[in-house]
Amino acid sequence: MPDELYREVLERIKPSAVEDAHMRSVAHEVIDKLDSEAREHGLDVYTIHVGSTARDTWLKGKKDIDIFLMFPPDTPLEKLKEDGLRLAREVSPRFEERYAEHPYITALYKGLDVDLVPCYHVEDAAHIQSAVDRSPFHNTYVLKHIDGLHDEVRLLKQFTRGVGVYGSELRTQGFSGYLCELLVLKYGSFDGAVEHGAGFKRGRVIDIEGHMDKSVEHPDPLIVIDPVDPKRNVAAALSGQKFCEFVDACRRFLKAPSIDFFFPPAAEPMKKGALEGLLASRGTKLLAITFKTPDIVEDTLYPQLRKAEDSLAKLLERHEFKAYRTDVWSNDRSAIVLEMLVWELPAIERHLGPPLDEREHCEKFIEKYPGAYIMGCRYVVDIPRKYDTAVELINAQLKSCGLGKHVCASIGQGFEILTNEKTLELGPEFARFLTKFLRAPET
Amino acid sequence: MPDELYREVLERIKPSAVEDAHMRSVAHEVIDKLDSEAREHGLDVYTIHVGSTARDTWLKGKKDIDIFLMFPPDTPLEKLKEDGLRLAREVSPRFEERYAEHPYITALYKGLDVDLVPCYHVEDAAHIQSAVDRSPFHNTYVLKHIDGLHDEVRLLKQFTRGVGVYGSELRTQGFSGYLCELLVLKYGSFDGAVEHGAGFKRGRVIDIEGHMDKSVEHPDPLIVIDPVDPKRNVAAALSGQKFCEFVDACRRFLKAPSIDFFFPPAAEPMKKGALEGLLASRGTKLLAITFKTPDIVEDTLYPQLRKAEDSLAKLLERHEFKAYRTDVWSNDRSAIVLEMLVWELPAIERHLGPPLDEREHCEKFIEKYPGAYIMGCRYVVDIPRKYDTAVELINAQLKSCGLGKHVCASIGQGFEILTNEKTLELGPEFARFLTKFLRAPET
Repeated sequence: MPDELYREVLERIKPSAVEDAHMRSVAHEVIDKLDSEAREHGLDVYTIHVGSTARDTWLKGKKDIDIFLMFPPDTPLEKLKEDGLRLAREVSPRFEERYAEHPYITALYKGLDVDLVPCYHVEDAAHIQSAVDRSPFHNTYVLKHIDGLHDEVRLLKQFTRGVGVYGSELRTQGFSGYLCELLVLKYGSFDGAVEHGAGFKRGRVIDIEGHMDKSVEHPDPLIVIDPVDPKRNVAAALSGQKFCEFVDACRRFLKAPSIDFFFPPAAEPMKKGALEGLLASRGTKLLAITFKTPDIVEDTLYPQLRKAEDSLAKLLERHEFKAYRTDVWSNDRSAIVLEMLVWELPAIERHLGPPLDEREHCEKFIEKYPGAYIMGCRYVVDIPRKYDTAVELINAQLKSCGLGKHVCASIGQGFEILTNEKTLELGPEFARFLTKFLRAPET
Repeated sequence: MPDELYREVLERIKPSAVEDAHMRSVAHEVIDKLDSEAREHGLDVYTIHVGSTARDTWLKGKKDIDIFLMFPPDTPLEKLKEDGLRLAREVSPRFEERYAEHPYITALYKGLDVDLVPCYHVEDAAHIQSAVDRSPFHNTYVLKHIDGLHDEVRLLKQFTRGVGVYGSELRTQGFSGYLCELLVLKYGSFDGAVEHGAGFKRGRVIDIEGHMDKSVEHPDPLIVIDPVDPKRNVAAALSGQKFCEFVDACRRFLKAPSIDFFFPPAAEPMKKGALEGLLASRGTKLLAITFKTPDIVEDTLYPQLRKAEDSLAKLLERHEFKAYRTDVWSNDRSAIVLEMLVWELPAIERHLGPPLDEREHCEKFIEKYPGAYIMGCRYVVDIPRKYDTAVELINAQLKSCGLGKHVCASIGQGFEILTNEKTLELGPEFARFLTKFLRAPET
C-alpha cells in the first residue's frame, strides 16, 4: 500500500502540534468556565468535550468544537433548555442560538466556533431521550476502541471528502465522521476499509458488537449497526447513489492510487465558448430554472430542491419530453438544471379518455371529442398539443407540479428559465458546477 | 328502432330469390353428384351442406359454399383424405387442392367456389378429431334454433363488416359468422345484440346452453361458450381492439343510427398536397418500411406483419425514438407504417453498464470506458449516439430485430424506407389506407 502517498496526505490533513494544542486548550478553558458557572448557580451539570476534536480524528483547518452539557435525566426539558442555554451564553459575549432537535448555542471563542449542546446524562444509550444524548456514548465508544488508528480515520475522512461522499447532512447524504471511524475500527485501517468497501454490495450489514436488533428493518444500502444502539443504523442517511459512488471510488483507488482521490483538482468554470461547443456537438439543450434561494438551512433546502427536481422530471415525462440528466444547484439563487434530450415535440398529442368499461364517462368523452377512437381498450383522441416545448410547459405548470413549501413560495414570487450559454449568468460557481454536470462523452 | 333503415340495409344484403335458388340448386347438385360417386365406389360417406348458405344467413354476393364429406369415425385418416379428395375431385374439372387443418378441395362449379371438406362423422361434438368435424354440429344447432331470425343475423353481419370488425381470420381478428349467429340467438334480434353489445365489458361471458366448462380458462375479451362444446370459446379469435371497436360502434349506433354503419363511405385516397399539408401541420414524420409481400396465405402473413410491427416499435423505443401510431399494410408489397413523434435525437446517449454488485463486469466496463459513472446503482457512460435518426437505426437493425420467417426472408432480400409523401409511391390502395391511418386531430 502506498505509504508515501498516505504520508503526503497526512501532512496536509493532520493538525499541527500548534493547532492541536490550541484546540485542546480551548476545550479545557470552556469546560472549566462552564463547570465553575455551574457550581456558582448550584447546577448539577457534567460538561464533556465530544466529537472528532475530542477523539483526535479531526482534520486540519477544522474551526469548530463540540461541548455537551449533560443534565441529570430527571431534569424537566424546559429547565434543561433554560439552564443549559443560560450557562452556554456565559462562555463568550459572541454567540448565536441555533436549533437542531434541541436548541443549542454556538459561541465564538478564541477563533473557534464552540457548539454548546445541552443534553441528558442517561445511564446507557438505550435510555436516550433525544439523538443528542447519544453523542457522549459514541465518544466513549470510539475513545475506548480507537487504539492508535486516529490517522487511519483521517485518511478515510479525507478520501470520502475528496471523492464527494463525505457528510451525512441532507445536501450530501454521504458518510458521517462517526461512520468513517466505525469502518476503520471494523477493518483495522484505511486500507482495510477501502479494500472491503470495494466489495460492498447493497444491503451489506456491519455489526461490530454483534448485537443487531433483527426486529428493526433497515431499507438502506449500507447497514452499520451502532455499537451503542442495536436498533440504529449509523449509515441510515447514506443514499444509494453515494454508497455506490464510494464503492466505485474504492475500486478505482485500489487499481490506481493517487493523491487526486484525496485532493481532486478543482473543476474549472465552464467558459461560454466551451459550453456552446459542447452543446453543439452533443445536440442537447441546457435548461436552468432559477429562483431566489429561500432563507432556510441546507437540511431543509436540499430536500425541497430535490423534490422540485423530481416533480419537474415527472412533469416533463408525462408530457413526453425527455431529460438526459438533472441536478440541483444553490447559492444566493437556486437552480433546477436539466440537460434535455427531447425538448420540442410535434403539434399533436394523444389525449387519453376513459376505459371502455366506464360507459357514462365514455359517452361524455365522445360527445366532447367526436373523433375519439379506441386504443388499448380505452378511448383516446388526437388533439393539438398544448405545450410544444419544455419551456412552455414549465412556464405554465411549474408552480402547480408539487414543490416543497419554501421552494414553492420562492418560485411563486418569480422564476426564470435560462437556456444554454445564458445559464452562465448564474456566475462562476455555477460555471464550475456545469463542468461536473456536463460530463464529456467517451469517444 | 329504425325499421326503415333496416329495410334499406336488407334490400342491399339479402340474396335475391334468383341468387338463393341458384345457391340451393348448386348445393343440391353437388351433393347428388357426391352421393352417386360414393355409391359407385362403395364408400360410406354422408354429404352435407353447411355454413351460412345452408342456414340462410348469408349475404348477397357470396360466391362460395361449403359441402362436407363425413366419413365414419373409424376410417383411418389417410383413407379419409385419399377417398375424400378423390370424390371431391369428381365434382368439377376445375379445382384446387388447399390446406387448412386438413386438406380440402375448392371446386369451381356453375360460378361458385365449392369447398369440399372431408371430415369425421362423430356422434357428438365432444368426440371430434379435428376442428372441421365441429362444423356440422354448428350447422345443426343454428338450424334448430334460428327460428326466423335469418335477417337479424344478416343485419349483424353487415353491421360488423361495416364497422370493420367482421371476420375471424388473423388479418382482422374480428367476429366470425357463427359468432354473429349466436349473438342474435342469445339476444333475439339485431337490436338486442347491439343494445347488449353497447354494454359489454371485457371478460363478458355468454353461455347460451349454460354448460360452460369452468375448468377451462379463457383469457379473452369476450367469451361465448360454444353451444356444441362446453370447453370452447367461439370468440377466441376476437382481439381486444376489435372487441372494443364493436362496443364503441354499438354505442354510437344507438345514439345516432345511420346507414353509414352498414355501408361506410369508402375512404378517399390521400392526395400528395393534402398529405404534405397534414404532416406539416402535425409536425410528425411518416415512415413506411416496405418490402415484397411473401407468397403465403393471409393467415400466415398478417401475424408475421404484426410481429414485425411490434419488434420495430420495441427497437425504436429501446433507442429512445417514439412512434405515435403504427400499423401494417399489404398488397403486392407490404409495409410497416409509422407516424413518428420523435425520429431524431441528440448526438449523445447513455450506455448502460453492469450493476455495481457485479464487480468483475464492472472492472471490465470501467477499463473500456474510463469515464463511466454511477447512476441508479449501476455504471453508465455517455457515448456518441450510434443512430441519430430512426431511419439509420432501422436500416442497421431491422433485419435482426425479431421477424417471422417469411417476412424476415423477404426483408432479407431488400427493403426500402419511404418517408412522408414518398409513401404514396405504394399506390392508390395505400393512399386510401393512409386516409384512415392518419386521423386528423380534433380542433
